[in-house]
Amino acid sequence: MKVKVLVTPKAAVLDPQGAAVRDAMQHLGMPEVESVRIGKYLEIEVGAGSADVESRLHGLCRDLLSNPVIEDYEIQPTNL
Amino acid sequence: MKVKVLVTPKAAVLDPQGAAVRDAMQHLGMPEVESVRIGKYLEIEVGAGSADVESRLHGLCRDLLSNPVIEDYEIQPTNL
Repeated sequence: MKVKVLVTPKAAVLDPQGAAVRDAMQHLGMPEVESVRIGKYLEIEVGAGSADVESRLHGLCRDLLSNPVIEDYEIQPTNL
Repeated sequence: MKVKVLVTPKAAVLDPQGAAVRDAMQHLGMPEVESVRIGKYLEIEVGAGSADVESRLHGLCRDLLSNPVIEDYEIQPTNL
């Protein structure tokens, strides 16, 4: 199955990369852009496995794929 | 409205960052992971604007947010 994982900066955390992109977009023809937040997007192809794939994936999202101090993650299974 | 933009490496392009994450996941308890591809995820808050917002957004996705030689982008309006 294919799993999509979104890792986004928490709302309370400053996102200077997003602020830079927002300013660039405002100067390049889209002054109506109000805010931009930038995260990571992962497409993970998982082969047939045992039943606890999802809990192990949550563990790896916490430990490897995101920094839980400043980031949230969201798992979207697309083809269970 | 809020717009989500996904920027992903094209299928034909090597993704060494994704390969490194795949190897790490395989070694950290998920040997069934077959492939990982990593892209960018942008949440853009766009204020009320004129009618051609979407076409200008496509232009900026091409020119600023992605490198069309090696990346694809996908725009997902969430609250039109």
